[in-house]
Amino acid sequence: MPQDLEITENSEIKPLRTFKMILSYDGTAYHGWQRQNNGITVQEVVEDKLCRLFGNTPIRIQGSSRTDAGVHALGLCASFRAPESPYIPDWKVKKALNRLLPEDIRIRSAEIVPDDFNARFSAKGKSYVYMVNTGDNNPFTNRYCWHMDDMTCLDELAEAIQVFKGKHDFTTFTVEAHKYDDPVREILDTRIVTFGPLVGFYFLGTGFLYKMVRSMAGALMFVGRGRLKAADIKEMLEAKNRLRCKDTAPAQGLFLKRVFYEGDSWENDLPDRPPFWMY
Amino acid sequence: MPQDLEITENSEIKPLRTFKMILSYDGTAYHGWQRQNNGITVQEVVEDKLCRLFGNTPIRIQGSSRTDAGVHALGLCASFRAPESPYIPDWKVKKALNRLLPEDIRIRSAEIVPDDFNARFSAKGKSYVYMVNTGDNNPFTNRYCWHMDDMTCLDELAEAIQVFKGKHDFTTFTVEAHKYDDPVREILDTRIVTFGPLVGFYFLGTGFLYKMVRSMAGALMFVGRGRLKAADIKEMLEAKNRLRCKDTAPAQGLFLKRVFYEGDSWENDLPDRPPFWMY
Repeated sequence: MPQDLEITENSEIKPLRTFKMILSYDGTAYHGWQRQNNGITVQEVVEDKLCRLFGNTPIRIQGSSRTDAGVHALGLCASFRAPESPYIPDWKVKKALNRLLPEDIRIRSAEIVPDDFNARFSAKGKSYVYMVNTGDNNPFTNRYCWHMDDMTCLDELAEAIQVFKGKHDFTTFTVEAHKYDDPVREILDTRIVTFGPLVGFYFLGTGFLYKMVRSMAGALMFVGRGRLKAADIKEMLEAKNRLRCKDTAPAQGLFLKRVFYEGDSWENDLPDRPPFWMY
Repeated sequence: MPQDLEITENSEIKPLRTFKMILSYDGTAYHGWQRQNNGITVQEVVEDKLCRLFGNTPIRIQGSSRTDAGVHALGLCASFRAPESPYIPDWKVKKALNRLLPEDIRIRSAEIVPDDFNARFSAKGKSYVYMVNTGDNNPFTNRYCWHMDDMTCLDELAEAIQVFKGKHDFTTFTVEAHKYDDPVREILDTRIVTFGPLVGFYFLGTGFLYKMVRSMAGALMFVGRGRLKAADIKEMLEAKNRLRCKDTAPAQGLFLKRVFYEGDSWENDLPDRPPFWMY
């Protein structure tokens, strides 16, 4: 039997098609994106609902990124292959899936794409924002920000975040450098976005190492608090040594903002101000 | 033994003082403010921690308002009487309590006030905001907004909300009119505040009946969706009949914003835009 065909109950052969979905989720309740044995994950919740929607066909989805436990996504991309659903037409997949999913996972779009599309391997770039609340501790920001009320050196911070721009060996800023053949990545843009007491660190790059954004955010916090200068960040980066990284920022402040594919423009991705995730 | 004194272990008599606290909480996880037998409430969580902080003295707090299950507070006021803590000085009560409390309940201030202060009976007015998300369903707004993507008649809405201003019998807009000797309340100000797809209904009044804001918000939604006009709201109000109320808006969109006491000014209370609860 060819891999791309499946035999239904009445032996009717239905071709498989490739879907591309964009998802938003509040990661607070999940052990990250990727299916695992010791906790509920976003991937498994979505796969279970897709299976139901497509007439109990087991469906495995490929995510663009493996977000960690507690990390949020505004626009994670996922691809999967499925036959026609016995219940709903293709154009209703988004709506039907949103009815089945819990409120903390939302499908923003779902469309049929050429069969060579793969959410992970076709990705050309990604953007992330790491959020900090520099004001009073607030029950409504604790899910979405790291609280750090002594962060006052915003000018130095704006200089320090520029250090990461360009092509660098990011060994200092990952926890698993030994797992990569090549720990060099390219950061295309970095910015500081603020709104009232909320401060966001924006990163746009062609790829990121494991825990790289949270490691960069952890180091930047020392700059914001006046304990390090931009020059120290440069020195840490050049050391290519994980032991030089000061801290890994906690998961709840991290948002995977967008994943870019062939033909997508980098322009206009920068959020104008927090809390950008709400609108 | 006089009521205002208590005997400690070594029979030393410590006088009771009156504290005034301002609290913010995300109401999602709680069965409202008031202590009850069948669910966890904000009042009981705070009382338990206060008891611990003041050397196992049982402390009963008086809240300014009894918010319902799932309703949020930005500035609920609570008063209580307590002796000096064996562990901490008075000026550390806020900080010590925040260390003991879960992250979804935060103490914004705690101070000693004259003994005749009572958070409920001394209140001169309150403000509320009811939030609606008129854009895409979003995992980050579902906890704090009613989602209603066909709300397009904002001009009519701005006219309709004015109908509530002034002194009226609000029998149509409460579920327990029979429990009140006098169902007349005075609304001092109403506004529509918007930011992107987020729309807030602001109400400032000297007092509110049970479920009054959610009943007014429920009726206003019909206006926003083009199904009722401002004149219909006026007619509903004048009917003084609960059966005329169309809908009660769900709890998660409601925020108790502020409680006013002698000497507090109504000015500058209006939030300039949502999501005002984050900053």
